[in-house]
Amino acid sequence: MQASGGAEGVYFPFSAILGQEELKLGLLLNAVDPQIGGLLALGDRGTGKSTTVRALGEMLRLANIAAPVVTLPLGASDDRVLGGLDLEAALVRGEKRFAPGLLAEADQGFLYIDEVNLLDDYLVDLLLDVAASGVNHVERDGLSVTHPARFVLVGSGNPEEGDLRPQLEDRFGLATWVRTITDLETRREIVLRRLAFTDDPVGFAQRFREAERELAERVRLARERVSTVALPPPALEAVVNVVVSSGATGHRGEIVLARAARARAALEGREEAAPADVAAVAAMALRHRMRREPFDTPESVDNRLRETLAALGLAE
Amino acid sequence: MQASGGAEGVYFPFSAILGQEELKLGLLLNAVDPQIGGLLALGDRGTGKSTTVRALGEMLRLANIAAPVVTLPLGASDDRVLGGLDLEAALVRGEKRFAPGLLAEADQGFLYIDEVNLLDDYLVDLLLDVAASGVNHVERDGLSVTHPARFVLVGSGNPEEGDLRPQLEDRFGLATWVRTITDLETRREIVLRRLAFTDDPVGFAQRFREAERELAERVRLARERVSTVALPPPALEAVVNVVVSSGATGHRGEIVLARAARARAALEGREEAAPADVAAVAAMALRHRMRREPFDTPESVDNRLRETLAALGLAE
Amino acid sequence: MQASGGAEGVYFPFSAILGQEELKLGLLLNAVDPQIGGLLALGDRGTGKSTTVRALGEMLRLANIAAPVVTLPLGASDDRVLGGLDLEAALVRGEKRFAPGLLAEADQGFLYIDEVNLLDDYLVDLLLDVAASGVNHVERDGLSVTHPARFVLVGSGNPEEGDLRPQLEDRFGLATWVRTITDLETRREIVLRRLAFTDDPVGFAQRFREAERELAERVRLARERVSTVALPPPALEAVVNVVVSSGATGHRGEIVLARAARARAALEGREEAAPADVAAVAAMALRHRMRREPFDTPESVDNRLRETLAALGLAE
Amino acid sequence: MQASGGAEGVYFPFSAILGQEELKLGLLLNAVDPQIGGLLALGDRGTGKSTTVRALGEMLRLANIAAPVVTLPLGASDDRVLGGLDLEAALVRGEKRFAPGLLAEADQGFLYIDEVNLLDDYLVDLLLDVAASGVNHVERDGLSVTHPARFVLVGSGNPEEGDLRPQLEDRFGLATWVRTITDLETRREIVLRRLAFTDDPVGFAQRFREAERELAERVRLARERVSTVALPPPALEAVVNVVVSSGATGHRGEIVLARAARARAALEGREEAAPADVAAVAAMALRHRMRREPFDTPESVDNRLRETLAALGLAE
Amino acid sequence: MQASGGAEGVYFPFSAILGQEELKLGLLLNAVDPQIGGLLALGDRGTGKSTTVRALGEMLRLANIAAPVVTLPLGASDDRVLGGLDLEAALVRGEKRFAPGLLAEADQGFLYIDEVNLLDDYLVDLLLDVAASGVNHVERDGLSVTHPARFVLVGSGNPEEGDLRPQLEDRFGLATWVRTITDLETRREIVLRRLAFTDDPVGFAQRFREAERELAERVRLARERVSTVALPPPALEAVVNVVVSSGATGHRGEIVLARAARARAALEGREEAAPADVAAVAAMALRHRMRREPFDTPESVDNRLRETLAALGLAE
Amino acid sequence: MQASGGAEGVYFPFSAILGQEELKLGLLLNAVDPQIGGLLALGDRGTGKSTTVRALGEMLRLANIAAPVVTLPLGASDDRVLGGLDLEAALVRGEKRFAPGLLAEADQGFLYIDEVNLLDDYLVDLLLDVAASGVNHVERDGLSVTHPARFVLVGSGNPEEGDLRPQLEDRFGLATWVRTITDLETRREIVLRRLAFTDDPVGFAQRFREAERELAERVRLARERVSTVALPPPALEAVVNVVVSSGATGHRGEIVLARAARARAALEGREEAAPADVAAVAAMALRHRMRREPFDTPESVDNRLRETLAALGLAE
Repeated sequence: MQASGGAEGVYFPFSAILGQEELKLGLLLNAVDPQIGGLLALGDRGTGKSTTVRALGEMLRLANIAAPVVTLPLGASDDRVLGGLDLEAALVRGEKRFAPGLLAEADQGFLYIDEVNLLDDYLVDLLLDVAASGVNHVERDGLSVTHPARFVLVGSGNPEEGDLRPQLEDRFGLATWVRTITDLETRREIVLRRLAFTDDPVGFAQRFREAERELAERVRLARERVSTVALPPPALEAVVNVVVSSGATGHRGEIVLARAARARAALEGREEAAPADVAAVAAMALRHRMRREPFDTPESVDNRLRETLAALGLAE
Repeated sequence: MQASGGAEGVYFPFSAILGQEELKLGLLLNAVDPQIGGLLALGDRGTGKSTTVRALGEMLRLANIAAPVVTLPLGASDDRVLGGLDLEAALVRGEKRFAPGLLAEADQGFLYIDEVNLLDDYLVDLLLDVAASGVNHVERDGLSVTHPARFVLVGSGNPEEGDLRPQLEDRFGLATWVRTITDLETRREIVLRRLAFTDDPVGFAQRFREAERELAERVRLARERVSTVALPPPALEAVVNVVVSSGATGHRGEIVLARAARARAALEGREEAAPADVAAVAAMALRHRMRREPFDTPESVDNRLRETLAALGLAE
Repeated sequence: MQASGGAEGVYFPFSAILGQEELKLGLLLNAVDPQIGGLLALGDRGTGKSTTVRALGEMLRLANIAAPVVTLPLGASDDRVLGGLDLEAALVRGEKRFAPGLLAEADQGFLYIDEVNLLDDYLVDLLLDVAASGVNHVERDGLSVTHPARFVLVGSGNPEEGDLRPQLEDRFGLATWVRTITDLETRREIVLRRLAFTDDPVGFAQRFREAERELAERVRLARERVSTVALPPPALEAVVNVVVSSGATGHRGEIVLARAARARAALEGREEAAPADVAAVAAMALRHRMRREPFDTPESVDNRLRETLAALGLAE
Repeated sequence: MQASGGAEGVYFPFSAILGQEELKLGLLLNAVDPQIGGLLALGDRGTGKSTTVRALGEMLRLANIAAPVVTLPLGASDDRVLGGLDLEAALVRGEKRFAPGLLAEADQGFLYIDEVNLLDDYLVDLLLDVAASGVNHVERDGLSVTHPARFVLVGSGNPEEGDLRPQLEDRFGLATWVRTITDLETRREIVLRRLAFTDDPVGFAQRFREAERELAERVRLARERVSTVALPPPALEAVVNVVVSSGATGHRGEIVLARAARARAALEGREEAAPADVAAVAAMALRHRMRREPFDTPESVDNRLRETLAALGLAE
Repeated sequence: MQASGGAEGVYFPFSAILGQEELKLGLLLNAVDPQIGGLLALGDRGTGKSTTVRALGEMLRLANIAAPVVTLPLGASDDRVLGGLDLEAALVRGEKRFAPGLLAEADQGFLYIDEVNLLDDYLVDLLLDVAASGVNHVERDGLSVTHPARFVLVGSGNPEEGDLRPQLEDRFGLATWVRTITDLETRREIVLRRLAFTDDPVGFAQRFREAERELAERVRLARERVSTVALPPPALEAVVNVVVSSGATGHRGEIVLARAARARAALEGREEAAPADVAAVAAMALRHRMRREPFDTPESVDNRLRETLAALGLAE
Repeated sequence: MQASGGAEGVYFPFSAILGQEELKLGLLLNAVDPQIGGLLALGDRGTGKSTTVRALGEMLRLANIAAPVVTLPLGASDDRVLGGLDLEAALVRGEKRFAPGLLAEADQGFLYIDEVNLLDDYLVDLLLDVAASGVNHVERDGLSVTHPARFVLVGSGNPEEGDLRPQLEDRFGLATWVRTITDLETRREIVLRRLAFTDDPVGFAQRFREAERELAERVRLARERVSTVALPPPALEAVVNVVVSSGATGHRGEIVLARAARARAALEGREEAAPADVAAVAAMALRHRMRREPFDTPESVDNRLRETLAALGLAE
């Protein structure tokens, strides 16, 4: 799935992406409430993760939501990521000025990191810190600059090529598994849509324009209302019970689960979160916070979570 | 538990933090007598360690105690930490001037290091030296600058991700274990307080304003009086007996234990330290100075200490 | 097979190269449709891989197709590959100007990397990104430059000397195995052609001039028409069935296979791709995307693919 | 035992230090005859090694002996240690001038290295060379400077954290083991003295002023006379017999032992060294020059030495 | 065999070197046809490999063949080897000029690398590329320079100290083993010649002047005629049969073997290469291209080759 | 044996050094004929190796032989060793000038490297190259300078701390073992001489002045005559027989052995070398060129050599 950008700068529409429902939901929830804390998308290569993130940003624009999607290139210098001394101003005019980096560009939007598991721990840590605080504070070369950097961190990676430290995984709000689609009909349709898009990007995008607009509008409304969505006792109890029963470590799971449930309710236009919202997002909020047993696989961890939900009467 | 800072720069109140009593006591004792030598907070991730430290700094301000809380960012340059040549002054005006670093900012306050076990040994060593002497002496780039740097070093870390050398652990005055809270009611309340705080930071902080003020005032008084609190023979004997019986190495354990016991007495408004003060702080003062046996766990070390106290008639 | 360039800048003709049919087809398909995504040529050393790529570029010129062949030297600096600050302009005239690198030189042509398996992963990754997007975006030294870089990436390597990560292999459109030729008659002819060429490069090239021109013209026509070549249902079904039956991971295999089949049809002057086109290029499109079993060899993987094709009635 | 410096720059008195007799003797002998070649102090952490060295320097001042105590900070640059180009003079005034380093500061005094076993071998080697020759010869940045650097090298370290190479150990004149004190009464007194000192540094120092002055005066006299103290045949024979019987390698042991015995005699005001002087310093002079057997411990090595002395009729 | 250069710049004569016939033949063949692709000389240390190469260069001069012998010093910078920016011109006169490196010096001659197996793979690779193409193309520091660099690469090494990668070995045209001579009479004569040479270099050289001149003239004639020496069918068949029967990998072996056989015929003044020429150089052309079996030694590989030649009726 | 330099720049006399006869002979032979190729002195630490080398240089001065003894400091920069750009001249006056390094200082004398086994192989290699050719050729920073550097390389080291590569050992002309002296009387005398020297350096040196002068004169005469000392057939045969029988690898052993035997004859004032000269220096010339068997020790190697000499009727 080479580049998602076709000729003339037209992008593949978010609504035209087949399958990968959890990935799409996880991105939409973060678009509604960025304090959910980002998304870690793990799984097979060649499944269109980066295409999906870029499509989301394009879609949001249709509701006048400026949510830039910035990709962190492998091997980018610290200066380029965080910002640093404006060398030209320094050398040519002798001025000490700040040159903003990728974090400034990503403000209000998404910062996408492909193969986040191959990045230096210290940089992942730093990006998570900035994402959590919404503020980038740069202290280098004698500069001391603070600027807003409220972005959603989206990391993708193939765990077969190296794990992220549990400490870092935990700090991503949600986590999702991305798998190759097995349905033949869907696969044929994917090939056709891809060829159709590269043969005629403009015409293809036109076919999905209306669906894109509607989805964008739903996200815009949910963003405005999410902070007033209530978390009544049954939902709150569901949150704590699921976390404790699942044996997830730390208190972050509860906070994220509560927020994601509220965001889902907002996205569906409701004013209260229900236990069903909790059930719907529990896997994404908790699977990377479960204690791992020696022979655990992604599937066995998800199964345990599903059994926990069922035992609590919260089966999705 | 993303950022502790909400909108409008309002912080989560120290008094609103549920559980984690030893962590809070350890911080308060260091606030009373910084010569105790800092605190090493080890344990589960996502348990609000950094939120607690920042909350302490905010709380102390209410009694006009200016105790800045400075966080050491992972990967910060030596220049930025220690201070160094002011590059702008050098390049633009040809002057050799000192640009103070984080240690200067932390003077009279707290220097917080997240995941201290991942830091370079040499830097931890250097920070401990400065913290112990209260003076930062910088010799680099032809500069020779000395400035006060009386701060309390607070390090946090998850020992599953790498140990600190015993040599370095020993130089932290106190050590505490931070665990996930298991009480369901407390956990529900934590979620509610968190959402309430991010929904309305100002209103939430208002609810705890009075408790914060009272605690701050207690710390202020204890700071003034701690050097006059006596260590009468029963307390002194308790100190030495506990250290010898526990098999802690070196003499630093005794000094720290004596100071911490005095600080606790001061915090409770008494003029003499009692064996009960010694018992109350013994675990924090000694657990990181015990000889480790092959199959020791944090729990088994704490149990040995508890048995030692009981055998000496000092059960808490 | 030392240098392919003889005296007076005359190159060994593409049409004079004996054997290695799959390698030559893979290069021609990429010349017809660069979106196929490059070629990974693995196998024995001394089999003339780089000679073949350079010969292709020379041949294409005869149909007025300017397709430069640029070789990435081992150990080239990032500056040299990506482009960077023009040091001379900066030092001498104080101007900040971009000095284009090898990627700019390779635009519209081929970028050849010998022993790609010995290159830094991060650089391979970056080259694949640029090749896929057709755009090189340079952010360094305070420069921000974007220029077209539509090239076909051709990597060669001997897997006995180190594997490429599966993640990176997958991003090469096609993969081929290059083997030492075993036919004695062909080998004698190779020695004679080689000596003849170095004895009299101009005369030798003359003998193959006509064959070169005809092949170049076929490629030129195919390039113009490939986007209008149809992929009717039997071909589409063949694409998806082959990929699913072979167990290749991800969706990229399908897209590449569809494109390569279309390019082959175009090269043969047809207006529709047929299942036979799919069968003819399936091995190149899928062998590097198959799951590897513990005792797999290149031969066993190719055999499995061949059986899959046979079972689907697509035997070549 | 945090910092040895209390408020107002008052230091803990040398005479107020309890226990650690061998460490104190080793330092005093080097103060009397710096050609003994320094002291390696190995053992438990938290036993006040650096406090003792600094206290010695302060004490010597009382007899008008200017013996600066310089601490080598971990991670100090070569420039800072050895001296180097005066960058300010070079950049601002275009002059090439030497900026003296720590070795110049330590001239006539003590250079203290904490955790010498963690230092680069090459730096330890260089420091030992300078200490042995009494001259620092700097050749760098086009500078060629020679200045006196007659200092006693004192290294401390915990052998559990990494050994010094035998080659380097051998070049320290003396070696001592520093252990946690086990006597309860002494330990109680240590805590009380420590608290008394930090509560009222000036008053505390006053109590030991007279003892400090007397000891300083004894050292001053011994320094003047040590080169005239004789080593009559019985003492000379004791030196060689002990070294040969103990199986220490090389000839350095004999020279050091002879010097240390003379220094002890001088410190006690005698004009001739006696076999008893040899016995008293033999352990310090030889324990780090003994061949190590597979299961040797510090204790077993010391025991062998003690048996050797007893067998020679030199039991202390 | 210290330096081969005696007083007054006189070199030890090529003709005075005893034994090492294969090494000398390999060098002469490369002198006749540099496209053979260099020589890898492996074996015992102290056997005069570098002396022999330097002697060859001196000898060739006698026939007015300017073939410089340049030695690549271990640790030479890339700038020095390849050429780079002329720093003086840049700094003093602000000009960007190319300063040629060792490859330019070696043009038309020999580049000798002692212990080539200890060199960085990337540099060996680069040198082999330049040697093969006869052109050095430098792209660095904003320079883009191309200059002829037609040299014969001669690498020596002791395989006990680390192997060259097979990929790199393969790219040396010929390979030879150099052994200590075992004949006593020859060894005595070597000592005498060596002492005689250092006692009186000029007189010694005089004794071999005529032999040197004759050999040089033979090489000069062979160089002129080698491209017209024919490779008739029996020789061509011998070439391919030997390579295939020996199981050497790739096609490079055939090309090199054909060239080396022609060069030998030229050196002996004949106009056609014969199967005997093929037999005489087969070991040098193929031994480093044979597949290695687990217990192979240099001897066993050579034996297999000898048996292959015998089986083909080509015993030397 | 701390510094060999006493007060007032007086050195310990060569003639006053007790024992270590082979070390002293090896140094004297190199002083007579520097083409012998240096000395590798391996063995126990603290045995006065560096003292002896420095003493030799001082002694030679008495016969007006200016043979500087230069010590290579561990960690010296390449610039400092080889020479490089004169930074001051470049920065201040804009001139490109060569600043000579230690190799220039060592010309006509000795370059001493302590712990040569810890030095980078590449630097040892380079130093051996320069020593062998007598010429230092510097190509760096755009400089191209050649200057004489005829020095004897003396390396010391303790093989317990890491071996030199056999390739490098072989290039030292001679090798000697230095052991702790076991004779008690000698050891007592060593202590007394050492103390006497540091108590009164001038008076002590005076006692050995005459012996020093005589030895210096003997060396001066031998240097003048060594090139005319003959190597008659019995001696030549002894040389080759010893080398072959001992199984030493390469031809360098013979050359060195012949030279060393001649130098010994010259030192003893004779005009012909005899088999006895060969026997006397065979161990030094060959022990580092013997093949090592699995359980070989320095002693077993020396024993084999001694047996070889005896079998040839050359017992010393």
